[in-house]
Amino acid sequence: MDINTLIRKEVLEQEGYRADFTSCHVKLDANENPFTVPPFLKENLFEEMKKVSLNRYPEPGALLIRKRFAEHYGVDEDMIMIGNGSDELIQILCSALVNSSSFVMVPVPTFVMYRIIALNTGHAVDEVPLDASFDLDQGTMLERVSAKAPVLIFLSYPNSPTGNCFNEGIVEAIIEASTGIVVVDEAYGSFSGKTLLPLLKKYDNLVILKTLSKVGLAAMRIGFLIGSPSLVHELDKVRLPYNINTLSQVAAGFYLNHINTFLSQTTEVIVRRERLLKALRKIEGIHPYPSDANFIFFSCDFDTDRVYRSLIQEGILIKNLNGPGILKNCMRVTVGNHEENEEFLKALRKILI
Amino acid sequence: MDINTLIRKEVLEQEGYRADFTSCHVKLDANENPFTVPPFLKENLFEEMKKVSLNRYPEPGALLIRKRFAEHYGVDEDMIMIGNGSDELIQILCSALVNSSSFVMVPVPTFVMYRIIALNTGHAVDEVPLDASFDLDQGTMLERVSAKAPVLIFLSYPNSPTGNCFNEGIVEAIIEASTGIVVVDEAYGSFSGKTLLPLLKKYDNLVILKTLSKVGLAAMRIGFLIGSPSLVHELDKVRLPYNINTLSQVAAGFYLNHINTFLSQTTEVIVRRERLLKALRKIEGIHPYPSDANFIFFSCDFDTDRVYRSLIQEGILIKNLNGPGILKNCMRVTVGNHEENEEFLKALRKILI
Repeated sequence: MDINTLIRKEVLEQEGYRADFTSCHVKLDANENPFTVPPFLKENLFEEMKKVSLNRYPEPGALLIRKRFAEHYGVDEDMIMIGNGSDELIQILCSALVNSSSFVMVPVPTFVMYRIIALNTGHAVDEVPLDASFDLDQGTMLERVSAKAPVLIFLSYPNSPTGNCFNEGIVEAIIEASTGIVVVDEAYGSFSGKTLLPLLKKYDNLVILKTLSKVGLAAMRIGFLIGSPSLVHELDKVRLPYNINTLSQVAAGFYLNHINTFLSQTTEVIVRRERLLKALRKIEGIHPYPSDANFIFFSCDFDTDRVYRSLIQEGILIKNLNGPGILKNCMRVTVGNHEENEEFLKALRKILI
Repeated sequence: MDINTLIRKEVLEQEGYRADFTSCHVKLDANENPFTVPPFLKENLFEEMKKVSLNRYPEPGALLIRKRFAEHYGVDEDMIMIGNGSDELIQILCSALVNSSSFVMVPVPTFVMYRIIALNTGHAVDEVPLDASFDLDQGTMLERVSAKAPVLIFLSYPNSPTGNCFNEGIVEAIIEASTGIVVVDEAYGSFSGKTLLPLLKKYDNLVILKTLSKVGLAAMRIGFLIGSPSLVHELDKVRLPYNINTLSQVAAGFYLNHINTFLSQTTEVIVRRERLLKALRKIEGIHPYPSDANFIFFSCDFDTDRVYRSLIQEGILIKNLNGPGILKNCMRVTVGNHEENEEFLKALRKILI
């Protein structure tokens, strides 16, 4: 077997996504909801799950859940598709769209999976740097849209890792100018209070992504894609028929049944975010940016490789973004619960002395 | 948006997998284990699941489970990968391998997802008919292997829907002759008592697929890929990092903890299969084939479209394979529990009068 001729070069040449396996008692690296499902509700959820016949395949296409979330998002049933996390929906989009002599466009920095999945599905990736305030560079984006006609553009709204929502007017100008699909990933939309869902009425090349991973159910891998019926129809052919396991389908329904509990956790995270931001601003050499998400992006006057390692020694895991260019000595910390945020701040202050 | 220029033609031109949404009280269409997890064990399983933090992402790569199943299958840890069902593993294989001017080879009839996924990932599919006894046509297969050098060959062992294990010598000759990857899908391997796992020591282009879907945990979507470390390393770059949700990881571990219970169900299915086969042989106009799997393939002297619909009216769902050529008036029935098999036989006899 000659692996170098069998495996596509886009795969051979990249390293894939590298998950951080470091285990710390304060985990603020993955933008998870710090609050667990309240015990009485968890009991309810598992009672529901126990009714499942584990020996039977899941409902293909998760029709019941699809219908309920369509209603929840105020769209028609044939405009929604459910994925094993948003990752799978990004993969389905990249797989279904033409990939010869075509481009996938992403701003940088942004969620790294767009690039990894696009490469793995045979696309060339065109990266356009964000401007100095982390907004989209309208001139360059529109110029490249016109020159390269990307089949897919991924815009994280708010953007990870920078935490801001891009200017809505620029996003709309890009959708308007593009002959390809523009994916607005609202994974962190619950924390911004903003959504571009209403634009779906105006643009059939707009796709919105949503997820339950940031609002309390990361373990269950439930993502949603919302777009025009004709597009969803084609994408659905690429979706594996039994992609959502039965217990995840139960969990998704449970989320809607108890949405107020989950939303109150989100509200609490927003409150904690503002307090964490204030506290970070007071630390010398730390420059945090305002956030519309459940994490805070900051740059340091210090070597963040050292800060990252020192925090781990204190039992605290955050994301080290240190890299060339705009991410030089930058980090991202997820908003935790009160105790986690305090532990993080205390450790950070201690390290920087 | 011009969907016809944006979506790849392989996707536009196909219909995707069509799941049967018909609901019947006797469900013998999907090759599921008819036996549920015994109540006392199910209680245990859900106690384990309750310990999970639903707000946290799953362990990326399911390392613990990967290690345990490597031990279970007697292979090194770096030879195994876990998928959201075997479907996802088939998709990963098709995605990672070169797909320009290349072929994926499958015998026909076989599991339809090989073809659908291969097309969706941009491969041309070369279908080679099985011989009259549903075995591989050695001459034609080897000739095409030599002429077309397929990057992937899928062999279902035992084969669905025909139920037989192909001649092992022919399979080995194909592996030996192929410069591409040969995937031996042992989804039904528990019912045949046969495995080609030992051949992994001899051939680095052999990949074995396994699943828990036929042995009692279809709801949880757990599949395994076993192959050479260098191949698994590349395939793992294409795998989405959090592809196995946390509760499925718990369920997979639980399977190993209680494997004897699951295996005794498998043994019971094999006993029921032989009884069902005998009974089917006694029905005039029904021609069942011996089976190494948990289903029985049979041809009819009747129009199976009618038989299929009439069975549904009796509350029984089986698989209608009726199509042109070798599948003319053929059906596949999953081996159920005693009552289900009796109901099916009774209804079939009634319909055929």
